[in-house]
Amino acid sequence: MRNVSWDELEKKFADLVQIRRDLHMYPELSFQEVRTPTIIAQFLQDCGLEVKTGVGGRGVTALLRGGKPGKTVALRADFDALPIQDQKDVPYKSKIPGVMHACGHDIHTAALLGTAYALSRVKEHLQGNVLFIHQFAEEVIPGGAKAMIEDGCLDGVDVVYGAHVLSNLPVGMIGYKPGALMAAGDKFEIAIKGKGGHGSMPHLSIDPVLVGSQIVLHLQQISASRINAVDPAVVTVCSFHGGDSYNVIPDQATLSGTVRSFSKEAQEAIKSHIEKIVKSSCEMAGAQYEFKYEYGYPSLWNDPEETERVKRIAELVAGEEHVVELPLQMAMEDFSYYMLERPGSFFLVGGMNRDIEAVYPHHHPKFDVDERSILLIGKMFISLVFDYLSSH
Amino acid sequence: MRNVSWDELEKKFADLVQIRRDLHMYPELSFQEVRTPTIIAQFLQDCGLEVKTGVGGRGVTALLRGGKPGKTVALRADFDALPIQDQKDVPYKSKIPGVMHACGHDIHTAALLGTAYALSRVKEHLQGNVLFIHQFAEEVIPGGAKAMIEDGCLDGVDVVYGAHVLSNLPVGMIGYKPGALMAAGDKFEIAIKGKGGHGSMPHLSIDPVLVGSQIVLHLQQISASRINAVDPAVVTVCSFHGGDSYNVIPDQATLSGTVRSFSKEAQEAIKSHIEKIVKSSCEMAGAQYEFKYEYGYPSLWNDPEETERVKRIAELVAGEEHVVELPLQMAMEDFSYYMLERPGSFFLVGGMNRDIEAVYPHHHPKFDVDERSILLIGKMFISLVFDYLSSH
Amino acid sequence: MRNVSWDELEKKFADLVQIRRDLHMYPELSFQEVRTPTIIAQFLQDCGLEVKTGVGGRGVTALLRGGKPGKTVALRADFDALPIQDQKDVPYKSKIPGVMHACGHDIHTAALLGTAYALSRVKEHLQGNVLFIHQFAEEVIPGGAKAMIEDGCLDGVDVVYGAHVLSNLPVGMIGYKPGALMAAGDKFEIAIKGKGGHGSMPHLSIDPVLVGSQIVLHLQQISASRINAVDPAVVTVCSFHGGDSYNVIPDQATLSGTVRSFSKEAQEAIKSHIEKIVKSSCEMAGAQYEFKYEYGYPSLWNDPEETERVKRIAELVAGEEHVVELPLQMAMEDFSYYMLERPGSFFLVGGMNRDIEAVYPHHHPKFDVDERSILLIGKMFISLVFDYLSSH
Amino acid sequence: MRNVSWDELEKKFADLVQIRRDLHMYPELSFQEVRTPTIIAQFLQDCGLEVKTGVGGRGVTALLRGGKPGKTVALRADFDALPIQDQKDVPYKSKIPGVMHACGHDIHTAALLGTAYALSRVKEHLQGNVLFIHQFAEEVIPGGAKAMIEDGCLDGVDVVYGAHVLSNLPVGMIGYKPGALMAAGDKFEIAIKGKGGHGSMPHLSIDPVLVGSQIVLHLQQISASRINAVDPAVVTVCSFHGGDSYNVIPDQATLSGTVRSFSKEAQEAIKSHIEKIVKSSCEMAGAQYEFKYEYGYPSLWNDPEETERVKRIAELVAGEEHVVELPLQMAMEDFSYYMLERPGSFFLVGGMNRDIEAVYPHHHPKFDVDERSILLIGKMFISLVFDYLSSH
Repeated sequence: MRNVSWDELEKKFADLVQIRRDLHMYPELSFQEVRTPTIIAQFLQDCGLEVKTGVGGRGVTALLRGGKPGKTVALRADFDALPIQDQKDVPYKSKIPGVMHACGHDIHTAALLGTAYALSRVKEHLQGNVLFIHQFAEEVIPGGAKAMIEDGCLDGVDVVYGAHVLSNLPVGMIGYKPGALMAAGDKFEIAIKGKGGHGSMPHLSIDPVLVGSQIVLHLQQISASRINAVDPAVVTVCSFHGGDSYNVIPDQATLSGTVRSFSKEAQEAIKSHIEKIVKSSCEMAGAQYEFKYEYGYPSLWNDPEETERVKRIAELVAGEEHVVELPLQMAMEDFSYYMLERPGSFFLVGGMNRDIEAVYPHHHPKFDVDERSILLIGKMFISLVFDYLSSH
Repeated sequence: MRNVSWDELEKKFADLVQIRRDLHMYPELSFQEVRTPTIIAQFLQDCGLEVKTGVGGRGVTALLRGGKPGKTVALRADFDALPIQDQKDVPYKSKIPGVMHACGHDIHTAALLGTAYALSRVKEHLQGNVLFIHQFAEEVIPGGAKAMIEDGCLDGVDVVYGAHVLSNLPVGMIGYKPGALMAAGDKFEIAIKGKGGHGSMPHLSIDPVLVGSQIVLHLQQISASRINAVDPAVVTVCSFHGGDSYNVIPDQATLSGTVRSFSKEAQEAIKSHIEKIVKSSCEMAGAQYEFKYEYGYPSLWNDPEETERVKRIAELVAGEEHVVELPLQMAMEDFSYYMLERPGSFFLVGGMNRDIEAVYPHHHPKFDVDERSILLIGKMFISLVFDYLSSH
Repeated sequence: MRNVSWDELEKKFADLVQIRRDLHMYPELSFQEVRTPTIIAQFLQDCGLEVKTGVGGRGVTALLRGGKPGKTVALRADFDALPIQDQKDVPYKSKIPGVMHACGHDIHTAALLGTAYALSRVKEHLQGNVLFIHQFAEEVIPGGAKAMIEDGCLDGVDVVYGAHVLSNLPVGMIGYKPGALMAAGDKFEIAIKGKGGHGSMPHLSIDPVLVGSQIVLHLQQISASRINAVDPAVVTVCSFHGGDSYNVIPDQATLSGTVRSFSKEAQEAIKSHIEKIVKSSCEMAGAQYEFKYEYGYPSLWNDPEETERVKRIAELVAGEEHVVELPLQMAMEDFSYYMLERPGSFFLVGGMNRDIEAVYPHHHPKFDVDERSILLIGKMFISLVFDYLSSH
Repeated sequence: MRNVSWDELEKKFADLVQIRRDLHMYPELSFQEVRTPTIIAQFLQDCGLEVKTGVGGRGVTALLRGGKPGKTVALRADFDALPIQDQKDVPYKSKIPGVMHACGHDIHTAALLGTAYALSRVKEHLQGNVLFIHQFAEEVIPGGAKAMIEDGCLDGVDVVYGAHVLSNLPVGMIGYKPGALMAAGDKFEIAIKGKGGHGSMPHLSIDPVLVGSQIVLHLQQISASRINAVDPAVVTVCSFHGGDSYNVIPDQATLSGTVRSFSKEAQEAIKSHIEKIVKSSCEMAGAQYEFKYEYGYPSLWNDPEETERVKRIAELVAGEEHVVELPLQMAMEDFSYYMLERPGSFFLVGGMNRDIEAVYPHHHPKFDVDERSILLIGKMFISLVFDYLSSH
């Protein structure tokens, strides 16, 4: 029956591409999605599923009840876009100024809709149920996953799978990794409050630009020397702003940055070291500070057993030579919240294709992927559902 | 006759205060002065002087020919204001939003007009001539002095005196200093061109915020270790801007700052060290840069002999116990251009008075000075004219 | 027969402890070993093995020919000591001033001698041969492994196993890890050549202490920002020397440090970044430099299949609950050279015991381990030999 | 009579050169002088003066009573040498290994002895007395001046003059400066107490080399940004020592350095900023520290009136065109202690002569000066005595 379902998916491919391109042309920012969930809900209803909207805010879930009793497998795709101006030259270029599907969530959505369609065609043969989770707001902390889970979307669910297309992995390839896969990502903001004055007499001021510069440099010590090198960690200051004039020392400078880590131990140590560095640097100069640390998504941990299943299925779907074990990824992903609640696994599917210039990094204004990745994700989902349900 | 002239000045005091307050209420930014020079020119014409307007752009000069032949003494006052919002609570508060006489140039102008009036009343007794130089645009590089000199305002002039009121010197005091008095002040701008990317993977980027921070720190070495400590120098980065987001490393960061020095040797060494530090820091990281260095006013050097005269006259005008030798000042002043062309001296006159809250630093939104400083400057000018002309 | 061999080992335990303590009392530094290889060779000869001495310099090998034809398994132990003053208070404390077995190589030697004895007692039953490799100079680059291999010690060998006792793993435990286990470790030396002078006039000097300090700080950027965070790397400056007097800037300062990495790519990038930082920092100040980079041992990579065997045997020897998968280790070990030539695996055996104060870190003056680790290593070796030979 | 005295000095010149060369061949370190004061005392006794030895420890004073009553002028010369190996190739090269008159104190001594001789020949004509102060230990804090003053050497003295030969001022020149001339010079020592460990695992250590490097860099901020630029200040770390091995992070690193300042305000601010920087840098890393700050000689302040006398006399002795006003000197000199107690002035006399390779800086192994500086110093001293005594 899996093969029948695959056939249904392939027959639906042209429609799925059209859906993907439609979403691509009308992308919606995180926490502002209206049109996208409406389209999704309509499609799933047309497939005859039990659809819920507004889940956790703007999420959509749809339950497919199989013909036989059994476990419930959840499949998740995210559907929000990014505040980036599309610079591609394609017919399906974004029509919304400054907003763009530059991370492939449109592909994920099309693939999951295709899966829903294909499985619904063979639902009588399913030994259990499938829950389709279309999630809003993956790009922006606190993300939609947490809210959807709190709204009960995992009630009755036994296992969760998710996928992400990658523009730096050739189309046709599938990547998996047991255990830690993606980093926890946090945000910090530092306001250094010095004492302004004329640049010609720095001894009468407390220079927040100088203090800030010192902090930027010393934060390098954290991942270099304060955290176990085998527990990967990144601390980067991405913005620094202070001063309006070339000859007036300002009162204040502000820094913001991101932290990536895999272990809770590293995460807490980093947070504490950042504040220690800020505190000491300010004290050295007589400055004051405000320090805000906002936890982002936790690190994503793939269940080893379910990842073994993903690997096995991937070899079936893509051929053994197209399946790779991935290294740790410093990116973050709120699929991690599902993995804190249920077993499951998150896998990555290739979308790179030089022939169609689908080579730009994620979040790049020219980002694009090969749409055949829709099929690969769909087949993975279909096969995982059959494999899981039939084995329990 | 000097005493007669002093009396004329004192009798005119109420009018001079009114002029000062009128200018204070209607301040004009550097290079945008229209009303101020018009008022000045009218006043000087009413005194019967030979007035020129548009000198070097917006400057006004007026020649008072004495009754007897002799040398020509030039007296200079500046008349531009600053882009600062007046926050004082006085009847003569600035009526122009965001523009304010926060440096006392209104005082200088009133004092020089008063001097012109008082000397014109006794002109028959003068053994030579007096040129009144009302200068525009002292606050903004390249300043008005250079343009007025290039326009010939010093032709036929033998000596030049100038004065500045100080809000941190008690009213009644006069300060002098032979030799170097005020610093040369330059401006630099640094653009660091790195390579943007995601904050979670700094190894794929060239981080301009990190490079910029390094530069800020290392610039400290210049005045600390690269320049002779007895040749005072200051290098301050007053603004640092880079990055729009907490997790995206930007392509570029920009710094700007000021340099103060007294000797040409130090000035050139500083410029060269800044570029060396910028270049090496960028090379270390693989970044590119743009470096702009703009020379401001040269350092102000008071002729020792004329300063001796200033000191002597000051002791007469203010009493010996109210005359102080000043330390070097890190501020800059385009009176220095006159001093490159003619002997002369620039002196400072107290304006601080706690009773009327005239205590705020120059360029502060609540800056004010005791208006009696108008009289002191005027008496200094009058006495210098008599002393110089009678001794040549 | 394996069990018989285990029994022989256990009966020999008291002798092995005595050998270990004798070596502990008379430790010999790397590349200076004379007494130790003599004792080893004698013991192996007494066991009736074919002994070679002076292998690659000071190494000893001994071949045990089994009763039946088959593969050849090599087992390796190192036997050099460290330039550390023993500060323990035990009867077998080092009698050689400033030299000490502070890393457990005496334990390894005793364990391998015991294995040789125990296997020689059952040699008729072995389906192949065993080569005992007693290696000199593991502690000091370039190490003895490379020289022994170049001298042919692996000729005819099919697989190699090695073990290390750990003072921070409880006695009774065994640790394994497939793939990368231990880091490549390199050494660098930096001489900064400035220009000395009096500390009161730094502008006349080029201060190598200041340049060196800058380098130390900036080297932190390498593992923090220049190397992929998921490819662990460490760069540490461990010594800094410059200056003889508090008020004379010296001509030169010297730094030395260590680099740890796992991938060749990271290793080369680090080397190049260090030199770039040194070069730019020196150029910034006008200093010269000498930079030496010495490659140490490569990273140690355990064959996954043989490590699976180690894991299985360890569960047998120590019980499943006493076997752990290890994280990456930043330490280095020249066993890595054997792993570049043959399949095999390096495992770690617990030696910590609070009751006897065997808790101090390796290379600590009070380092000691529980001598029962000798038995555990011996049993692992014996079992690996039987398992490997019987399965080929 | 002054001219007679000058003649006596010139006739004695060959002897004085011989004395100077004898002292040059047998230099003695500070606080270890035995032979030198013995020779001095003998010479002064032979001149018929009232000699005291052991003044304040190793100093020698001699009183010349003039023929008429009057004031008492003190003249001071220092006589200690330096721990430097003489590398000149001259007949009078130091015969004491590692000890050398590399600062010209032998010249000062010969000049003052010559002055004593020349004045003693005309003593009947003096309207007052002259005290000759031969001081030990000028090169090493706490110096001999303080001890000699505490021992009463200034009792009855009205004015004190001192001189120093300079190898970078051409022979024949004399330099003076009213007010501040030489800096206060202090010493600091910083011990950073971290936590040693293996260089491969810096996160388990507290790295004192890293903390020390940070401190060296941040100390640059003091004179660059924390102290008024017009109040010259220098902070230099001249030695940095930590670590014995390339791969072991040490427990401790030690820094030492010098501070130069002119005002008490700057001196105290610097001291406090150093400690603040050390404290904060250590706290940032979790390290401990010891901080020692030792005050050296205070800054040397020349009485303006007596310096006017020095200038006038210098123009007489050397010719107006050979007299220069000096800039501030960052070097220190314990003549400053005399200036805290009595009016007086310290002047500098040229010794540079390219023809005889007398061009090396002070404290250089090839330091030498033109011996004609003996005559110039002598004539200055003689003339100052006559001028002062005759004018009071």
